[in-house]
Amino acid sequence: MSRPALIAFDADDTLWHNESHFHLTQQRFYELLGAHGDAPHLAGVLVATERRNLKLYGYGVKGFTLSLIETALEVTNGHVPQATISEILMLGRELLAHPVEPLPGVAETLEQLRGTARLVVITKGDLLHQEQKIAASGLGDLFDGLEIVSEKDPDTYRRLFARHGAAPEAAAMVGNSLRSDVLPALAIGSWGLHVPYHITWELERAEAPAAHPRLVTLDAISGVVGWHRGLPLDVSSTKT
Amino acid sequence: MSRPALIAFDADDTLWHNESHFHLTQQRFYELLGAHGDAPHLAGVLVATERRNLKLYGYGVKGFTLSLIETALEVTNGHVPQATISEILMLGRELLAHPVEPLPGVAETLEQLRGTARLVVITKGDLLHQEQKIAASGLGDLFDGLEIVSEKDPDTYRRLFARHGAAPEAAAMVGNSLRSDVLPALAIGSWGLHVPYHITWELERAEAPAAHPRLVTLDAISGVVGWHRGLPLDVSSTKT
Repeated sequence: MSRPALIAFDADDTLWHNESHFHLTQQRFYELLGAHGDAPHLAGVLVATERRNLKLYGYGVKGFTLSLIETALEVTNGHVPQATISEILMLGRELLAHPVEPLPGVAETLEQLRGTARLVVITKGDLLHQEQKIAASGLGDLFDGLEIVSEKDPDTYRRLFARHGAAPEAAAMVGNSLRSDVLPALAIGSWGLHVPYHITWELERAEAPAAHPRLVTLDAISGVVGWHRGLPLDVSSTKT
Repeated sequence: MSRPALIAFDADDTLWHNESHFHLTQQRFYELLGAHGDAPHLAGVLVATERRNLKLYGYGVKGFTLSLIETALEVTNGHVPQATISEILMLGRELLAHPVEPLPGVAETLEQLRGTARLVVITKGDLLHQEQKIAASGLGDLFDGLEIVSEKDPDTYRRLFARHGAAPEAAAMVGNSLRSDVLPALAIGSWGLHVPYHITWELERAEAPAAHPRLVTLDAISGVVGWHRGLPLDVSSTKT
């Protein structure tokens, strides 16, 4: 098991805060509709709506906003005040325009890894919004590529790792989501580096896998540097 | 000016009907809100809303649906019936789930071009939706690549043509939009093949360029075959 030539990073909740912003938006949504149920009830209807819409809307803030509106209509039996719909549209726009806050240690970690591996971002969500976030993060120049995808499954990783010149076993995926970042990477024989975030979206929850020789769990993204340095260089790939 | 090695196709209104579905959706929207203005008035408010939201929402059905809701709130001064909001959400879902109808001659054209040039799709819109449309069209296997982008500007085309191994002058872009398909391709020295569709979205309108040695206007997509055959093979690229 030699040192990967390609390290791919998830973006939301791995490079910068994301779910915490969604969480605050949801809190405001629950307050807006507080007359129609408590937060756990409203959250249940919202998650069911998001789950139902996922195959049509995909990931991202625009689909989330549409699901908030649909949830508001449902829990009020069609008696949601107009002002609430306006407010929900505004919440969605605020999420799209929210400043990007990189997580601690991200820039330093990428700077230390640069030159030792090819670094790319693999993220899902709204196309334009993800591009805008990488630009706003100031991290764009530290990466060799940005890939925005509609779903993160084993085929996606195999295709994108190949695009960036790496066989599966020569690639690592770093992210906060076991379901989207770690498990599908392990499934194709790549490394899966799990860096948990303090909030996990309901639809991203997954059982932690049993011990696996290519599964690495880190407290913080800075741990990627030491992990990478600790692996032997691939002699075969340096022969040329 | 030798025969291009790469031919890229726009998708919506070039490979399959699209704007005609949006048009029908808009007609239903105008009927829903008929008590608050005639169609030209409502259309004006809608286009202004879409234009304002474009930088945040980007292209695609989800942003369009959010703009329809915002327009409904605006033209009714906040007195839109609940049922109308539900109806708009349904219109958006119908657009996302609409069957894909390839335009006449598309499959035959691609089959005739295959083997004579590398064929790719370059489209903007919602990531998941565009992927689903290419899958539903049955045309996916005729292409060597699918690229979904947030904006079609000269830099986008330069980057994507290079990804598929073609210098700008060895690439052609085929599409119905002068603004998004033809002009930015001409700007980098590529071919721009314009195949007009009978409806053009307000935000895609552009002045036709003056005569240009690499601008080709075709009545139908089938014309791409004859145009391509009529150009001399690039002898320098066949030397190897």
